Amino acid sequence: MWVRPYRHFVRGDVQVESFNTYVDEQTDRFLEELQALCRQPSVAAQDWGIDEMADIVTERLRRLGADTRLIATEGAPPVVFAELGDGPKTLVIYNHYDVQPPEPLELWETEPFEPAIREGKLYARGVSDNKGSMLARIQAVETWLETVSDLPLKIQWVIEGEEETGSVHLDQWVDENRALVEDADGCLWEFGYKDIAERPVINLGLKGIYYVELRTRGASRDLHSSLASIVPNPAWRLTWALSTLKDADDRILIDGYMDHVADPPPAAVELMEKMPFEEERLKEDFDIPAFIRDLSGMELLKKHLYEPTCTICGVESGYTGQGSKTVLPNAAMAKVDFRLVHDLTPELAHDLLRRHLDRRGFDDVEIIDWGGEHPSQTDPDAPVVQAAIDALEATYGQEPVVWPTSAGSGPMYPLCEGLGIPAVSFGVGYSGSNVHAPNENIRLQDYVEGIKCMGEFIRRFADSG
Amino acid sequence: MWVRPYRHFVRGDVQVESFNTYVDEQTDRFLEELQALCRQPSVAAQDWGIDEMADIVTERLRRLGADTRLIATEGAPPVVFAELGDGPKTLVIYNHYDVQPPEPLELWETEPFEPAIREGKLYARGVSDNKGSMLARIQAVETWLETVSDLPLKIQWVIEGEEETGSVHLDQWVDENRALVEDADGCLWEFGYKDIAERPVINLGLKGIYYVELRTRGASRDLHSSLASIVPNPAWRLTWALSTLKDADDRILIDGYMDHVADPPPAAVELMEKMPFEEERLKEDFDIPAFIRDLSGMELLKKHLYEPTCTICGVESGYTGQGSKTVLPNAAMAKVDFRLVHDLTPELAHDLLRRHLDRRGFDDVEIIDWGGEHPSQTDPDAPVVQAAIDALEATYGQEPVVWPTSAGSGPMYPLCEGLGIPAVSFGVGYSGSNVHAPNENIRLQDYVEGIKCMGEFIRRFADSG
Repeated sequence: MWVRPYRHFVRGDVQVESFNTYVDEQTDRFLEELQALCRQPSVAAQDWGIDEMADIVTERLRRLGADTRLIATEGAPPVVFAELGDGPKTLVIYNHYDVQPPEPLELWETEPFEPAIREGKLYARGVSDNKGSMLARIQAVETWLETVSDLPLKIQWVIEGEEETGSVHLDQWVDENRALVEDADGCLWEFGYKDIAERPVINLGLKGIYYVELRTRGASRDLHSSLASIVPNPAWRLTWALSTLKDADDRILIDGYMDHVADPPPAAVELMEKMPFEEERLKEDFDIPAFIRDLSGMELLKKHLYEPTCTICGVESGYTGQGSKTVLPNAAMAKVDFRLVHDLTPELAHDLLRRHLDRRGFDDVEIIDWGGEHPSQTDPDAPVVQAAIDALEATYGQEPVVWPTSAGSGPMYPLCEGLGIPAVSFGVGYSGSNVHAPNENIRLQDYVEGIKCMGEFIRRFADSG
Repeated sequence: MWVRPYRHFVRGDVQVESFNTYVDEQTDRFLEELQALCRQPSVAAQDWGIDEMADIVTERLRRLGADTRLIATEGAPPVVFAELGDGPKTLVIYNHYDVQPPEPLELWETEPFEPAIREGKLYARGVSDNKGSMLARIQAVETWLETVSDLPLKIQWVIEGEEETGSVHLDQWVDENRALVEDADGCLWEFGYKDIAERPVINLGLKGIYYVELRTRGASRDLHSSLASIVPNPAWRLTWALSTLKDADDRILIDGYMDHVADPPPAAVELMEKMPFEEERLKEDFDIPAFIRDLSGMELLKKHLYEPTCTICGVESGYTGQGSKTVLPNAAMAKVDFRLVHDLTPELAHDLLRRHLDRRGFDDVEIIDWGGEHPSQTDPDAPVVQAAIDALEATYGQEPVVWPTSAGSGPMYPLCEGLGIPAVSFGVGYSGSNVHAPNENIRLQDYVEGIKCMGEFIRRFADSG
């Protein structure tokens, strides 16, 4: 192992200045490195480029001097695990090297895996979720080592390769490798962003998720649609089954589902009351006349963060090309995600859904599980939270917005709440990042600031009580 | 114009024998010609190869000696119109040179536009619907001219190029060219088949059709599905809107729709009582446990032929690839066809649908019309019907099954019922032809017999009272 020459570790503005100067000087190289990362497709759902990406990330961490290895779990892409530094505190950095599928391809202005810089933004699938935040943290550690000293704390990277397909095997990985990470004092979660009013955001929790594909079958083959008078149509079966799950007022109707949902805790309500939520600007940005149920204010926020969802993410049957084709399809499928809150778990959601469908005669509707995650919550009083708040305030010159939980999901439960490790999330995205959508992008300026912010966070968390 | 040498026109078995011998001798060439026709894609819905196909058909009819021309209608592919022969009777032959889209391509065993012969069957998109029947009739006329004499009646071909997209402009073509065809005594409709018990079938009518695309829109772009808690989902809007159109018992719920439906007329019931309908074999062939509503017997037949339909032919929204993608789609669409009976017309169906959706708050659901056709009915006592029955009986050695109407659709109303021309339909398909589906095919033996049957029909219709 290559041994880094010893440097004095000195706190204060001189080091901050030298840290930030290095980042500015290296910006072109840092951005080139990010583009190289984005050029490698790594789509977990399509098993595309996953091993190659794991190798690139491993190589990058080794160049940093971190003790890096791939840790396999049966049936899963390997987790890149790396350790570097020493000190009174241990920080787990959780990221993932996989990305969402790039479809629909025709809506991308440039190719999803050919990173392109336009008007101060870098466009590529995965650049915001979460290759940008992943690499910015590594480059911040490089900068620290080059300009300050050895790390003042131990950092442990856990970088998995199937986050975007529901981290199906991460709880098993944690079970098998618990001893590696269980003593950590805090976790920096995968990514974050500036909101629509340019305020930096910290997230303290995640909804759970349960993702299914519902399938129906009809005749042995597609038939002429004149036969639809007498031969059952799987597209109708699916429509009828789906329509029993949620009403036009967006109320989830699955028997027993809402019994597992509770009002937000008082500490969360307190944070929500301080949360600016730019409703008008969001509506304008999304080009929608109103939010669901025409909600606004605290009721809107509560629904967003503390109500579960039941979302058709995709549906397909029969002929979907140009013009008309009079065909009776022989199969139909819908992809549905359920965001889970409170004590709704993937297992519970599955059982409730199956029973609900069966009770209504839809036992012909097949449920294919595509993974799930428990909801998770961090205590707002944990030291790692305060370190993050201070770091963002120092970097961006304004108090960050603290979200008590996020509407998104991730495997925070097994890695953090399950091991008693408080987690915070912040990163290099912004409200226009088009996460999970065509033309995903980050702003170059946010990226540079994100590296600097990570320097502030390392120092503050190492020093925290 | 090339003038054919005069031959004696003699009726009877000698001519039949010489006709059939010629067909047998020319079978290889006839089949090669059919394959050439099928090699040319002509997908109206995708505007693919239409003009090329019109030219091929024109050229074939000119080689026959027919006075052939392309007659344009604004916005439509040209109609190939041809005339040949003279006599006391005039027969219109209606065919179309377009075919259905070939999708889903992955289910074809050989390429849809690379005709392939396997186990006595010819596979190609359009070979059954309706290039086979179209060409068999032309080749029958060639055979007649070569082996019998001049034609004993006048034949007028009307071969259009947008039947599979609803013959949107054929009524306009008939309006503009009414004088050409209005004196005809009968019409031979596009295609026909042997049923599952190998009985030749004659059809005397067609359901109407109204084909729409329903579209819903959400945000300005696809969003991360965590936002589905507050941002409306067009896939759900579409599901809810569709679910109001028909219930799980297959009852159409569109306000006022069923008021325009009546019981079948007594003459039709009489024919239906004689119709063998092989329910068990059909269920086995389609691999379904039961027909809709578990119907059987006369109730099943009545529903098949005299009830309207509302069929999801295709639906698409969001991510439909492998695995999971947590996306909130920004658009959704469904293709729906309505088969019309009695006094339901496309215009009426549109108005009822629009009003029904608006009344339930679905005025955001856009309706895009992809064409429609009126239902049509032929009098079972018309001479052209008896000529067809006699021809099929002579060819196949058994009484044909006469369907008072078909569950399928076509532009029979403007060309036939509207002009007072009775129409019959028979042709070269069979119950396994996979019309509108992958692996469309006909049996070679059926094709040869179909040419011979057309010879019988020409003679009998020329002689009819």
